[in-house]
Amino acid sequence: MNAFQFYNPTSIVFGEGTADRVGELTARYGKNVLFVYGSGSIKKTGLHARTLSRLAEAGITVHELPNIEPNPRLTTVNKGIALCREHGIDFILAVGGGSVIDASKAIAAGTLYEGDVWDFYSRKAVVQQALPIGTILTLAATGSEMNGGTVVTNWEENQKQSFVSPHTYPVFSILDPTLTYTVPRNHTVYGSVDIMSHVFEQYFSLTPNTPLQERFCESILQTVIENVEIAIAKPDDAAARANLMWCGTMALNGGQISVGMENDWSSHGIEHEVSAIYDIPHGAGLAVLFPNWMKYVYKQRVDRFVQFAQRVWGISGEGMSDDEIALAGIQATRDFFTRIGAESRLADFGIGEENLDRMAEEAVKYGNIGSFKPLGKDDVHAILTLSL
Amino acid sequence: MNAFQFYNPTSIVFGEGTADRVGELTARYGKNVLFVYGSGSIKKTGLHARTLSRLAEAGITVHELPNIEPNPRLTTVNKGIALCREHGIDFILAVGGGSVIDASKAIAAGTLYEGDVWDFYSRKAVVQQALPIGTILTLAATGSEMNGGTVVTNWEENQKQSFVSPHTYPVFSILDPTLTYTVPRNHTVYGSVDIMSHVFEQYFSLTPNTPLQERFCESILQTVIENVEIAIAKPDDAAARANLMWCGTMALNGGQISVGMENDWSSHGIEHEVSAIYDIPHGAGLAVLFPNWMKYVYKQRVDRFVQFAQRVWGISGEGMSDDEIALAGIQATRDFFTRIGAESRLADFGIGEENLDRMAEEAVKYGNIGSFKPLGKDDVHAILTLSL
Repeated sequence: MNAFQFYNPTSIVFGEGTADRVGELTARYGKNVLFVYGSGSIKKTGLHARTLSRLAEAGITVHELPNIEPNPRLTTVNKGIALCREHGIDFILAVGGGSVIDASKAIAAGTLYEGDVWDFYSRKAVVQQALPIGTILTLAATGSEMNGGTVVTNWEENQKQSFVSPHTYPVFSILDPTLTYTVPRNHTVYGSVDIMSHVFEQYFSLTPNTPLQERFCESILQTVIENVEIAIAKPDDAAARANLMWCGTMALNGGQISVGMENDWSSHGIEHEVSAIYDIPHGAGLAVLFPNWMKYVYKQRVDRFVQFAQRVWGISGEGMSDDEIALAGIQATRDFFTRIGAESRLADFGIGEENLDRMAEEAVKYGNIGSFKPLGKDDVHAILTLSL
Repeated sequence: MNAFQFYNPTSIVFGEGTADRVGELTARYGKNVLFVYGSGSIKKTGLHARTLSRLAEAGITVHELPNIEPNPRLTTVNKGIALCREHGIDFILAVGGGSVIDASKAIAAGTLYEGDVWDFYSRKAVVQQALPIGTILTLAATGSEMNGGTVVTNWEENQKQSFVSPHTYPVFSILDPTLTYTVPRNHTVYGSVDIMSHVFEQYFSLTPNTPLQERFCESILQTVIENVEIAIAKPDDAAARANLMWCGTMALNGGQISVGMENDWSSHGIEHEVSAIYDIPHGAGLAVLFPNWMKYVYKQRVDRFVQFAQRVWGISGEGMSDDEIALAGIQATRDFFTRIGAESRLADFGIGEENLDRMAEEAVKYGNIGSFKPLGKDDVHAILTLSL
């Protein structure tokens, strides 16, 4: 276990009906709010009107920023920053999934920064302050509701980049699992793949002596695996939705499950290059890429992959070599993703070899990526090729 | 899973050598500090002098309150409150284990309260504010370093009571596992029993549908079990000490491992009555009582005890009834406590029947205790009798 620091000040309000507390919670921080949301599904479900009512009852003035994209775009973020400045916004309320929350974090930091908000993503500047953010989560996936991370796409330059800051943790996040009953099947699947992928990025680590962290990781993986198919079969299954939601938050709440462990994050880096060009759902890209990353790197530490196969997938491994057990665990992961309906090849999205070189080049533009096995351009190219 | 709120603002600084950061961290919050510690073992190890040096380098004025008792006493807390008022203390630094931290929380809340600090423990008043507290932890046990709980003994009235407040979370806690190398064998054992007991109080719950929480609990139990004997055999085993320390913090950091679950806490209630009269180490009392509580209540929910036996103790249960598996798990717990050197009977402390009635009466003075099986006076008496 390495030395570490951990601090997570987000206040979680979890349970059915908690969305009605949004007015009271928001009023603790602001009076003039930017209400950020996505494509309008919250209008269909009534959450939009309900949120406006609660905010009005709390005496809060509301400005709206709708139409945040699934891979949120810099242009939209800049629109939000302009709105905040124009109206003297003092609090940002994000109602949606990770894209809406990520865009809100960018707006929160960008509003109080004199330069271009993209500077934070391109590593030219570090966030020093941000407007406070609150969230109502509507999708179990990114963990953005309880961490300081944000991913935004600069579509004009096909750049999808991220930053993490202690200033962009939401001050509160409302997690009402019943709000996820209307999430369509494919996004339930992609969200679950995203949750599992976040755990993978932390779990497959070279850091020795982290037994509690490893078990916490395995706990989330097992619980997601148990619950996805239930939620698919019965979208309003209260237990499954609650479990998936809490797994999503715990998988990436500022790195608590992997404190003192070196993380990898190269698969996310590669996926960002794919969706920066092709705009595919993040979880879908991860489902394609992650098992191929595993195959490419597992020999770095076969014992961790053996443990993964045995503890998470229940592969006894009797009569098998360590390599065979490790590969069986990787195959079980691929089979599971396929069984729940995730794509397994880039070709499923019409993606061929045409941009492989460009994506590989972009993935390593700040240097090699990953820590489990540091990947150069050729490695990324090889993993993308395996994924065709 | 029930609705819940979770908020934990303690900043954790973990790793070898982190105690040297105490000056810098303290200076963020105060300039005039009450330095609280215990029996003086920190003088032997050099941590006392080292802390004073770091605080002096940071330009901080220090007043000292030594000699906090293992079951910290109200009289000592009141001495600390008087010191804080006399010297206009603005920050409390607790250096030690749970007792030192718990006493510091009491002082922090009591200093800013006009009435008697015992009002918080006797449920006559609720904490509205407290001085900020920081800690350097020297014992893996109570979790007090990352929660708002405190237990204090009013020795004159043989009352050992607790309260939990959002105002008494430490603002920072320094967790340097190397500081626990000098913890003697018995306190390594009692601390580990305490950690496991905290998990038991949360894990044995009637709340349905909490698979992630249950696995988090099991993760801690398994990791403690794996590491205690290593730490006993080799007190400076860096890995074992780090694992035990992080298990202790995670076991009781504001209830994160059991969010949305009803907790029990009756065994702690009973133990508090025993040590309010006999002043035995808290972990020692729990080692005696907990397996007997388990035997007394397991039929409330045999399936949870079967899961415990199978997942935590690896009891396959083949050819056994559920009751037999459950009881085998309880026996494994008792055997483990005995193997690591914890006492198994009240008689081991010279405690007989003389005060059983009084302890049982006191345990339920605010009503039945526990939620897994609510216990009245007769139940408590029966568990104490099993423990003789």
